[in-house]
Amino acid sequence: MLELYHAEPSANSMKPMICLKEKRLDFVSHYVDLLAFEQHEPAFVAINPNGQVPVLIHDGAIIAESTVINEYLDEVFPEVPLKPADPVARARMRVWSKFIDEYFCPALSMIGWHVRIRQTAKAVEPARFAKLLERIPLEEQRQKWATIGGDSFTEAELADSRRRLVVSAQRMEKSLSEGPWLAGETYSLADLDTYSMAVALPRLMPESVSQEKTPRLLDWIARMNARPAVKAALAMSRRDPRTGRRIDRPAAASA
Amino acid sequence: MLELYHAEPSANSMKPMICLKEKRLDFVSHYVDLLAFEQHEPAFVAINPNGQVPVLIHDGAIIAESTVINEYLDEVFPEVPLKPADPVARARMRVWSKFIDEYFCPALSMIGWHVRIRQTAKAVEPARFAKLLERIPLEEQRQKWATIGGDSFTEAELADSRRRLVVSAQRMEKSLSEGPWLAGETYSLADLDTYSMAVALPRLMPESVSQEKTPRLLDWIARMNARPAVKAALAMSRRDPRTGRRIDRPAAASA
Repeated sequence: MLELYHAEPSANSMKPMICLKEKRLDFVSHYVDLLAFEQHEPAFVAINPNGQVPVLIHDGAIIAESTVINEYLDEVFPEVPLKPADPVARARMRVWSKFIDEYFCPALSMIGWHVRIRQTAKAVEPARFAKLLERIPLEEQRQKWATIGGDSFTEAELADSRRRLVVSAQRMEKSLSEGPWLAGETYSLADLDTYSMAVALPRLMPESVSQEKTPRLLDWIARMNARPAVKAALAMSRRDPRTGRRIDRPAAASA
Repeated sequence: MLELYHAEPSANSMKPMICLKEKRLDFVSHYVDLLAFEQHEPAFVAINPNGQVPVLIHDGAIIAESTVINEYLDEVFPEVPLKPADPVARARMRVWSKFIDEYFCPALSMIGWHVRIRQTAKAVEPARFAKLLERIPLEEQRQKWATIGGDSFTEAELADSRRRLVVSAQRMEKSLSEGPWLAGETYSLADLDTYSMAVALPRLMPESVSQEKTPRLLDWIARMNARPAVKAALAMSRRDPRTGRRIDRPAAASA
């Protein structure tokens, strides 16, 4: 049996959601509501001591880290392969996934934090927030959440993250001038790993990601949007992407 | 033909050096002297636009990123396998390699930069240094080198990196209580990727990495030190590890 603990179909949670859908694998979905701080609840931390989504459980074996989960799924369920057959293209795929994890995602995460998560956290009553803070397992995460009351990130840090997003978009544009997909001729984990972050770019930075400046990137996003697996993953959303409100609960129940 | 561009057998350069030796593969070694800033020379940047070692060239195909190089070598030369056969253990291996890349290595790199590289760079004549700075391709790297004249990292940043090294050592100790190697029963890329960083820990932080506090980690380092492949990689050093002086050139030539 496959089970996936995930949040919204966005960023790291979205990576294995698309991968599972591409491979047409049935899985039990466990929604972890990040805006309700469910990722730090003891029941979830017992599954992943880092208190982070996504987590895959396959016949009892726990696999964390979205990039690793996708490599695992591709090895164990190779019927719909998501790695190029050529080892050089496969290395190119892994360089992309690594770039996403180490460069693109942290920058996007800082911006996302600044514009949304922080506002949600600020709305929590202080005594309750202090308790929520205490149970965050990773020191780095706790430090980040603890800045809620203040200015969070500096203007210089935010500017540097925005610069990194532009660098990421330009790198995608260049790569897509060399082939239809990020690893070359073959659609691969590199595309779905990257898409899960990049889909936010046109809205987030229209001055840098546009038909004029990054036509290939926009075409690739459109091709990704059209994939049935991507549509199926996006359909698993539990919150309205514009308002952030839960859409899977009657209004009375969410009060 | 296999060619490896690498620096000293240490950190990221050491990872593919051990891997190649474990697999008993012949390769042409191209030494890139980081303390002579050769990684930013146009000839090398033409090979890796990021100006970073190591780089593998296999029959003309260029593969960068040490973790990706090792996955590539293991796929293309599977005769001496360095991945566990069990996909769950393989996922565990990849979580380790990722942790090294994203958490342990950046912390170690900051400390290493602070105690050694910075001193070397400070000794360079300012006008020449300004020119060296100009040709650094990665913005992040250029920013780091540009701090040479000042205080480089803050005390808080250095303390946080030291904390991360302690967390890394404790995580290794715990993992090694669950099996002889980091991914479990099988020696794997996780061990050689991690060793390339961890070998520095007993000297760097004897108060946290010791027979008393981390006996399993020290035992694992000793087992790694004893491996012929590790010895062969270490024997490729071109600088005295204590003084940092080139040992492969007559004194007159190095002047």
